[in-house]
Amino acid sequence: MNQNSSATASLSRVTILIRVREGILDPQGQAVLQAFHDMGENDLFSVRIGKLIEIYVPQTDALKSRIESWCQELLSNPLVESYEIQGIEPVTHQPMSM
Amino acid sequence: MNQNSSATASLSRVTILIRVREGILDPQGQAVLQAFHDMGENDLFSVRIGKLIEIYVPQTDALKSRIESWCQELLSNPLVESYEIQGIEPVTHQPMSM
Repeated sequence: MNQNSSATASLSRVTILIRVREGILDPQGQAVLQAFHDMGENDLFSVRIGKLIEIYVPQTDALKSRIESWCQELLSNPLVESYEIQGIEPVTHQPMSM
Repeated sequence: MNQNSSATASLSRVTILIRVREGILDPQGQAVLQAFHDMGENDLFSVRIGKLIEIYVPQTDALKSRIESWCQELLSNPLVESYEIQGIEPVTHQPMSM
């Protein structure tokens, strides 16, 4: 049983999706699309690769607005990327800290 | 039977999430966590960074099983990553092919 202090705060998992904006070149997606075509999967039209970011943080009142500023200031480059806060869910299981 | 006129076929967007398995080191997530701490955001417990993959492909009967094999063979490294097929949705808007 985990008895450290953070076990008493309610922990949330924040899920954020970062996408390369439409019209912006996505070299990683292009490379994967080429690999599909090389495998004979010729009907794929497009592949876009973005980021899945999961943050484990104690639930607080101002969390939603803090997440917005994190997305704008640290997690995405607004010039070429868009972000979507997909969910904020309570978690009971703490991830391993690594 | 694969008909090659993809303009008439119904296009789907397949959304796949790739996560670094729990217990496996995630240097990118650690770097972002450190950046948060440097910004004074000290209550964050953990940050994990995975991939968001969006594939645009014509809807076919065998699509679901094809996606499974794509995930296993090309999109994830099963030793250190897990995948989740989050959704297969019809799209009317075709992304720019770049």
